[in-house]
Amino acid sequence: VQPFGDRVVAAVGALGPICVGIDPSRALLDAWELPDDASGLRVFGGRCVEQLAGAVPVVKPQVAFFERHGAAGMSAFEEVLSDARSAGLVVIADAKRGDVDNTSAAYADAWFRGPFHADAVTATPYVGLAALGPLVEAAQATGGGVLVVCATSNPDGRALQEAVTADGRTVEVALLEGIGEWNRRLGAESASGAPDGEGGSPSATGAVGPVGAVVGATRSSTGLPLSDVGGVILAPGVGAQGATPDDVGRRFGGCRPGTVLPSASRSLLGAGPGRLRDDARRLRDDLAAALR
Amino acid sequence: VQPFGDRVVAAVGALGPICVGIDPSRALLDAWELPDDASGLRVFGGRCVEQLAGAVPVVKPQVAFFERHGAAGMSAFEEVLSDARSAGLVVIADAKRGDVDNTSAAYADAWFRGPFHADAVTATPYVGLAALGPLVEAAQATGGGVLVVCATSNPDGRALQEAVTADGRTVEVALLEGIGEWNRRLGAESASGAPDGEGGSPSATGAVGPVGAVVGATRSSTGLPLSDVGGVILAPGVGAQGATPDDVGRRFGGCRPGTVLPSASRSLLGAGPGRLRDDARRLRDDLAAALR
Repeated sequence: VQPFGDRVVAAVGALGPICVGIDPSRALLDAWELPDDASGLRVFGGRCVEQLAGAVPVVKPQVAFFERHGAAGMSAFEEVLSDARSAGLVVIADAKRGDVDNTSAAYADAWFRGPFHADAVTATPYVGLAALGPLVEAAQATGGGVLVVCATSNPDGRALQEAVTADGRTVEVALLEGIGEWNRRLGAESASGAPDGEGGSPSATGAVGPVGAVVGATRSSTGLPLSDVGGVILAPGVGAQGATPDDVGRRFGGCRPGTVLPSASRSLLGAGPGRLRDDARRLRDDLAAALR
Repeated sequence: VQPFGDRVVAAVGALGPICVGIDPSRALLDAWELPDDASGLRVFGGRCVEQLAGAVPVVKPQVAFFERHGAAGMSAFEEVLSDARSAGLVVIADAKRGDVDNTSAAYADAWFRGPFHADAVTATPYVGLAALGPLVEAAQATGGGVLVVCATSNPDGRALQEAVTADGRTVEVALLEGIGEWNRRLGAESASGAPDGEGGSPSATGAVGPVGAVVGATRSSTGLPLSDVGGVILAPGVGAQGATPDDVGRRFGGCRPGTVLPSASRSLLGAGPGRLRDDARRLRDDLAAALR
């Protein structure tokens, strides 16, 4: 199977740089005139997939909205995942998982091998990047991706993410650099395993690694080593949360083409299913122009 | 409904200071001669509840092990939650959830109001403590608890958690102090709402707040302001991960009695269901002696 990063680059190359959130919040179910139960989630997800397949490369269902309805909601989530993948969409499960030890190994099974398997899963690094090892190994083995939350724009998140580690780097810079090193190491391993591999690190034209970063599109990227991440960068916050295509262009323009996924949810979903496809295409084209 | 913290103090007072993990990993399902599927999860959980009810005050099912089997696994999780609560156990859903914005509100619905509602849920603070606001509000409103991961002992976690914030505190100290302030604020609010409330902050004999902390039992507590947290302290890592009852006594002895929940999983579960009750009681008594 083609690795996650390469699939993203190919899909973005074909359609344009955008990821659309599938976020069936109570408010959006209401706006779509759907019941706030598992059947509402299922219809909401199905309509999103219908409208978005062929128009955008990547979707990102947020697991929290499905969890609200317990196991029945998670059954709707399973269906949305599988519908979206069958429709040719690359699917990022926005689950923000992260823990130490054998729990991390269980997450790896859940998100890359079990019924919830997606193309990639988002992860949270409070217990450190290394703790995500089992998730990254499973991603590497199955052609998946792990997108690690690094930099958000909320003030309280800033305080933690700008704290300075013992080696003088901020937490967010240390994470982003750690992700870059991890991808280079994994790239070197695969290269040395290939019969005619040249070894060395993936260059700007080489493979895209399985470890990516989540960096808020609302967040100034000054001082963030984004161009060395070597993986996919998911940038949520376009639209309702305040980032414009121009912000995206300014903040992520230096990244390797095809690896940046600006993500919008409410601003596209709020108008109901009827306008979703057209609105998503328009935003996709605006983002493509801004990142050109 | 009696608030979470008070329920924990009462249950620990009646039975002793221990929380037992319900962790149906692949390895433990195998050791218990159960199939690695949703039916295995269901039987594993049911036997844990049978063995532990009346012997320990608190259990902590780890959601990751149920997620491995998708929606069917989450249906088993729902059943375990409800069995455990019916059997009089206080239940902490070990889910490590955490996100910003309206996702945090969805988590609040999921873990305090939906079919997965538990007595408390664990949370991860990479996007900051304030982002957990909707979860804490829901906990306060429903008599639940939110236990925030603060300090773990894995080396990579140490680097992040010991990073220094702009005000000169480490990340973990800032979180623990922030939790203490939050509990005092919530305590003052409830006190000022009561007709004969004296206002002011909960003292060592006052209410236990809804916000708690997760601090590894394997982690030296030197420099951590544990006695001012004002909520429940969950201390995983007893047994298989290396912490002894003596470690627990040394590290958490200064905390308010009844608020510390040392937690063990594999060391108790590994011997199979037949010995679980007796082994859990023995460890409970050793922990009670160490914390006396």
